[in-house]
Amino acid sequence: KMLSRVLCTVLFMGALPSLAEVSQGHISVVLLGATGDLAKKYLWQGLFQLYMDKVSSGHSFTFHGAALTAQEPGQRLMFDVLKKLACPPDESPNRCAVLKDQFVKLSRYHQLKTAENYTMLNREIETLLHQEGLKEAGRIFYFSVPPFAYTEIASHINSSCRAPPGAWLRVVLEKPFGHDLKSAQQLAAELTSFFREEEMFRVDHYLGKQAVAHILPFRDQNRQFLDPIWNRHHVERVEIVLKETVDAKGRTSFYEQYGVIRDVLQNHLTEALMFLTMELPANVSRAEEVLQCKLQAFQSLRRLEKSSAVLGQYQSYARQVQEELQKAPGYTSTTPTFAGVLIHSDSLRWEGVPFLLTSGKALDERVGYVRVLFKNRAYCTQSQALRAAGHSQCKAKQIIFYIGHGELNTPAVLVSRNLFKPVMPKGSWSELVGHSDLHVFGQPLSDYYVYSPVKERDAYSVLISNIYHGRKDFFITTENLLASWRFWTPLLESITHQPLRLYPGGVENQHLLDFEMVSGEVAFTVAEPVQLLNPHRQMPSDYKTIQSKFRQSPLVSAWSEDLISQLASDIEKAASRSVAHSGQFHLALSGGSSPVVLFQRLARHHYAFPWKHTHIWLVDERCVPLTNSESNFFSLHSHLLQSVRVPYFNLHPMPVHLNQRLCVEEDGGTEMYAKEIVALVANASFDLVLLGVGTDGHTASLFPHSETGLEGAQTVVLTESPVKPHQRMSLSLPLINRARQVFVLVLGKGKHDITTLLSRVGHQPRKWPISGVSPSSGQLVWYVDYEALLG
Amino acid sequence: KMLSRVLCTVLFMGALPSLAEVSQGHISVVLLGATGDLAKKYLWQGLFQLYMDKVSSGHSFTFHGAALTAQEPGQRLMFDVLKKLACPPDESPNRCAVLKDQFVKLSRYHQLKTAENYTMLNREIETLLHQEGLKEAGRIFYFSVPPFAYTEIASHINSSCRAPPGAWLRVVLEKPFGHDLKSAQQLAAELTSFFREEEMFRVDHYLGKQAVAHILPFRDQNRQFLDPIWNRHHVERVEIVLKETVDAKGRTSFYEQYGVIRDVLQNHLTEALMFLTMELPANVSRAEEVLQCKLQAFQSLRRLEKSSAVLGQYQSYARQVQEELQKAPGYTSTTPTFAGVLIHSDSLRWEGVPFLLTSGKALDERVGYVRVLFKNRAYCTQSQALRAAGHSQCKAKQIIFYIGHGELNTPAVLVSRNLFKPVMPKGSWSELVGHSDLHVFGQPLSDYYVYSPVKERDAYSVLISNIYHGRKDFFITTENLLASWRFWTPLLESITHQPLRLYPGGVENQHLLDFEMVSGEVAFTVAEPVQLLNPHRQMPSDYKTIQSKFRQSPLVSAWSEDLISQLASDIEKAASRSVAHSGQFHLALSGGSSPVVLFQRLARHHYAFPWKHTHIWLVDERCVPLTNSESNFFSLHSHLLQSVRVPYFNLHPMPVHLNQRLCVEEDGGTEMYAKEIVALVANASFDLVLLGVGTDGHTASLFPHSETGLEGAQTVVLTESPVKPHQRMSLSLPLINRARQVFVLVLGKGKHDITTLLSRVGHQPRKWPISGVSPSSGQLVWYVDYEALLG
Repeated sequence: KMLSRVLCTVLFMGALPSLAEVSQGHISVVLLGATGDLAKKYLWQGLFQLYMDKVSSGHSFTFHGAALTAQEPGQRLMFDVLKKLACPPDESPNRCAVLKDQFVKLSRYHQLKTAENYTMLNREIETLLHQEGLKEAGRIFYFSVPPFAYTEIASHINSSCRAPPGAWLRVVLEKPFGHDLKSAQQLAAELTSFFREEEMFRVDHYLGKQAVAHILPFRDQNRQFLDPIWNRHHVERVEIVLKETVDAKGRTSFYEQYGVIRDVLQNHLTEALMFLTMELPANVSRAEEVLQCKLQAFQSLRRLEKSSAVLGQYQSYARQVQEELQKAPGYTSTTPTFAGVLIHSDSLRWEGVPFLLTSGKALDERVGYVRVLFKNRAYCTQSQALRAAGHSQCKAKQIIFYIGHGELNTPAVLVSRNLFKPVMPKGSWSELVGHSDLHVFGQPLSDYYVYSPVKERDAYSVLISNIYHGRKDFFITTENLLASWRFWTPLLESITHQPLRLYPGGVENQHLLDFEMVSGEVAFTVAEPVQLLNPHRQMPSDYKTIQSKFRQSPLVSAWSEDLISQLASDIEKAASRSVAHSGQFHLALSGGSSPVVLFQRLARHHYAFPWKHTHIWLVDERCVPLTNSESNFFSLHSHLLQSVRVPYFNLHPMPVHLNQRLCVEEDGGTEMYAKEIVALVANASFDLVLLGVGTDGHTASLFPHSETGLEGAQTVVLTESPVKPHQRMSLSLPLINRARQVFVLVLGKGKHDITTLLSRVGHQPRKWPISGVSPSSGQLVWYVDYEALLG
Repeated sequence: KMLSRVLCTVLFMGALPSLAEVSQGHISVVLLGATGDLAKKYLWQGLFQLYMDKVSSGHSFTFHGAALTAQEPGQRLMFDVLKKLACPPDESPNRCAVLKDQFVKLSRYHQLKTAENYTMLNREIETLLHQEGLKEAGRIFYFSVPPFAYTEIASHINSSCRAPPGAWLRVVLEKPFGHDLKSAQQLAAELTSFFREEEMFRVDHYLGKQAVAHILPFRDQNRQFLDPIWNRHHVERVEIVLKETVDAKGRTSFYEQYGVIRDVLQNHLTEALMFLTMELPANVSRAEEVLQCKLQAFQSLRRLEKSSAVLGQYQSYARQVQEELQKAPGYTSTTPTFAGVLIHSDSLRWEGVPFLLTSGKALDERVGYVRVLFKNRAYCTQSQALRAAGHSQCKAKQIIFYIGHGELNTPAVLVSRNLFKPVMPKGSWSELVGHSDLHVFGQPLSDYYVYSPVKERDAYSVLISNIYHGRKDFFITTENLLASWRFWTPLLESITHQPLRLYPGGVENQHLLDFEMVSGEVAFTVAEPVQLLNPHRQMPSDYKTIQSKFRQSPLVSAWSEDLISQLASDIEKAASRSVAHSGQFHLALSGGSSPVVLFQRLARHHYAFPWKHTHIWLVDERCVPLTNSESNFFSLHSHLLQSVRVPYFNLHPMPVHLNQRLCVEEDGGTEMYAKEIVALVANASFDLVLLGVGTDGHTASLFPHSETGLEGAQTVVLTESPVKPHQRMSLSLPLINRARQVFVLVLGKGKHDITTLLSRVGHQPRKWPISGVSPSSGQLVWYVDYEALLG
């Protein structure tokens, strides 16, 4: 009845669809949570925009608002919202007024609480269609409800509200979609039991932001310019940033559970990152191709560690949480409200390029952007002062997808004029002129080609239009969602006890949140300001390395970082001395986790190390193929050898893998290695052997009560480890004791007991093999960190 | 007589040395070329400065000017010069006037032409010393004469003018020191026959420039700040620049033979480069330690190729040469007056950092500087506009040794305030304040700590003082000189026919001389303007590679350098395709001499090559230990593998050396290699096999009439070569023919006969094994250079 009246009006107006056109079929839109904040602020407006845009498309529409509220008050609340719908500036006021009137008439409210409510809704839709003689095109269910309600609603829709065969179902889901990989998988599994993948439209409203939505089309339309430069050889860094001035006040019950990484980085900024880094599919509007490329790009991302992020919290946050959530006074929250994260991709295209994702609340300005900064490869012979104005190759080269707000206060795409004049879709983006006094990203706006959308569209309008068009590429598929959680969850888990830098908020933050990249990690640039310091925390630099004795041999002790740095320097000194003396340095290294930090330090800080003249031997090896990640040599290769230039011929992995089998005695691996040592190392006396100690007192792969290696003439032996992989190859104690120098590295609280024990016991190698290390004519030095030494 | 009078005056003045102090001994300074340009302009003033500085040092002095001019006119000319000596601003006018008077009295002129003249000079010095009862400390002979006169003068000094035992001889030599490695070696050998190394002081007056002379002391005194950042991880690029506004007019007879590289880059800029890149010796004022570190730094420089430089010539140069050297009209000169050169060091410290050396005449400004630009590793969360003034980590970080002229118009050391406050020697450098309106290197001067010398000293004064002090580290030793020529000569030879970009001169040059780095090479940024092109000169790019057929397969032919460059690109393309497709690239490479150039090209130019995913196999190997220089793998390692990052596990040398013996059949090396191939290479089908051809038609190590490898099931075989070492291991023809692609490289006149023969014969592998190469389902491409193809 209502519908037919509207349809008549429509037909009467002439400008609107004819009957023939209406034959495209009818679409029913059901907005669940029709009176909630999001619906009020964006969704009804977006649906109205859809109606204005699509009223002549040949589809007819009805709009159903739904909530738990009873019919009467709910209806009143909803129509209050609808009355306030705004006319967009690019629409004629007359047409808009007529359409708004129609839109309101096409909308109705439903209380949806019980199974019957859903059945009734379904019957109502069917009846309406039958009465009007309309074919059904499809139904859209928009879930603007808290996630705990998802399952029940989904189940009702699935059982009662599916459209008849031939018409589609689209359910639109709003974040959060879980809070880590496990919860996301669980939620996804539940939804999958009710809906097919193609029926689900998970919203990340960033994908509706015009500048973000244009990243892929831009890359596609500018392939000719970007192909040669969209890679690690030309890109210096990428910044993906969403800064907010507001804080979490009033929303802490949500925010305290999520924090900035889950709220912004895991979804919005990650999606932008994917659009930048993914390989470009042949057809950028085919959702399936886009998804495949995106998933591949996720796979190339290097695993995040806690040192990949810097975290902060604005100072008044804890008090807000305390007040809003009725926490005890003195409550401290570990939820970050600011994060800067350094991401690396190991793809051939992006290896080594830093991607910096940053977001925070209570910052100095509200702005969002994706900024690609290119390397400067030019030398400009003429001095800048003496040049005619022009677009010198020595000026910064950038491409910026400006999401909005900030100084430009409009979505925009900026391309440095010394890069190229981009191809932009004529109808939807236009070149911005004027504004020449503005400076953005260190340069006057006149240094860029600047494009902004012809019609500025709110993200939800864009997304609702894309739901209508079934453009799945604007939404997050289950695979995409899980890939993103898979990437972020390790970081989220590792930072639960990470200290947060407190910041005052707003412009007073000054340099406090600036951060720097150092060897693949990030750290705040300025040291923790004194007034925020916990006075009980002592700075590592307060501790100097202790030099004394341990088991009658020299002992070097310090906090682990200083200790490693001292050890690395001492190894370099030994190497230089040995090379100066004999032209070679024979270094035998142990496996295990402690040396990894040492290897990394040697790789990154010791440029004068005489690698070219160094021979690398293994103290011990696990009986696994060399390319197995458990192999000591593999670890050594990953953390050290691949970064330095040791000649191939100077690398001596242990021959644990011969004749396609591992550590079989008759293959003679131990004899082979022993012969190699005798052939190359004078007197079989290594210049330096680096050892560790196990909690059971083992060293090398010589375990307590070992049958082999603790004594006797055999220099290289097979041994049995109590832990997997059990089979090992090891240098023997007598061979180790022939070395000129032996350094023993002991790190961490876990080694405190064995360290204490060793400080008391004598020479008992059968019980504690490490106690048998006693170079016959060489020097032994212990490097034990404070945690191991003092507990 | 004259001397005693002066000495009396000196003593009478009181402020000057007492007799006891004079007992340090007497120094005679002989300036050869005493009336020449350099002497007039700098050297006499430098000697006067020395006298002013050292009159109280305890040494007494006499100064002998010498030239070919006869006694009377020579003396007049010389005293005209001495009369004009200036008093430095930091000297009291009274004292200076008295000292100038003394200096003139202590100076005399000698005609030095014949052997007798030299004997006479020697006798005169001896008589004088005897009369005054002075001990002789030493003699300085300053050669300010053309290089062709060096040998004769050196011979006279050596035979007639040496000081008696106990006193030293120092001969000071001025450039040019040869024009390439050979001529420099010859000149050095001649000088060495007359003087000991420690007696020779070769002047590079840049080492006397205060900012250049301070590079090493600066690095030394600021070790604490520089140690962590003076390396490839922190330095973005280094620019070493000497720009002149003058042109070569009036000096073309010299300039036409030398050009900008020999005039400025080989000496001045290279010395500055060495001070920056060398490892820092423990004691930076010990000449011998400095020299050793410098020589090591030279060894790490990557070989220059013609693509390492961009060259220019100012437009009026050719006309100036034509006029001054009476050349025929239309004369064209190939002498560059502008050069930009990209230098790479392969040291661990500097690998990958571009060092840009630039110099030219007729440029827009006169300025010299050494600029170290650091990477920006910071992200500044606060927007620049909203920050209080301060030294943000996001501003550029630079250290600049400002040699002089330019906007600062003083030697200076500049350090960005966001780096560190440098330690500078208090007495000799002081902080500059004010000047805040100046901008240098893109930033206001207030962004830097700026230091300038307390006393600005002309380079020659500095050097003459250092000759007096015997500071050999301020001079160029023979080894240093030859190392520099060894580095520059290959470039100089390769660019003799390189096109020069013509430039109008001065500010009109605009962007014409800007250049850019692309994959380790440099090129002008703007394309050659049409009007400046010489239509008759053929550019190398005019020669295209010929594409046709050879033995029914595609043929690529060109001059050898272009051919290698094409082949390298094609291999990279194949690699990228294969990695994109299967994640791996299995490349089998041949030994021999032809591939060496290819290996070098791959090592130096192909930064995008997916080495990390490439497996390297050997096509054949000689039965020698891998570390033997005859080993194919050893050659591959030297020329390619040590420069790129192929993981250890991806290198597959042939197992020719097992059980301490070479290629013994029962050791099973061939089976082992065959198994390794089967285990790793899908279908044992290499992605690419690179082959060569011997003059006898052999390929791989498959020789005519070989018993093994030409057919049959065995994939890896032992063979016999007609030449030593006879024993070889080789892939078999059937295995090679399984490859997806086979490229055959044939280079040089020596291969013309076999190439011609092969173009005629069919499939006869027993006679000519190469004729059996015919991939069963892969592609075969011939790369044959013009010399091999056309003879």
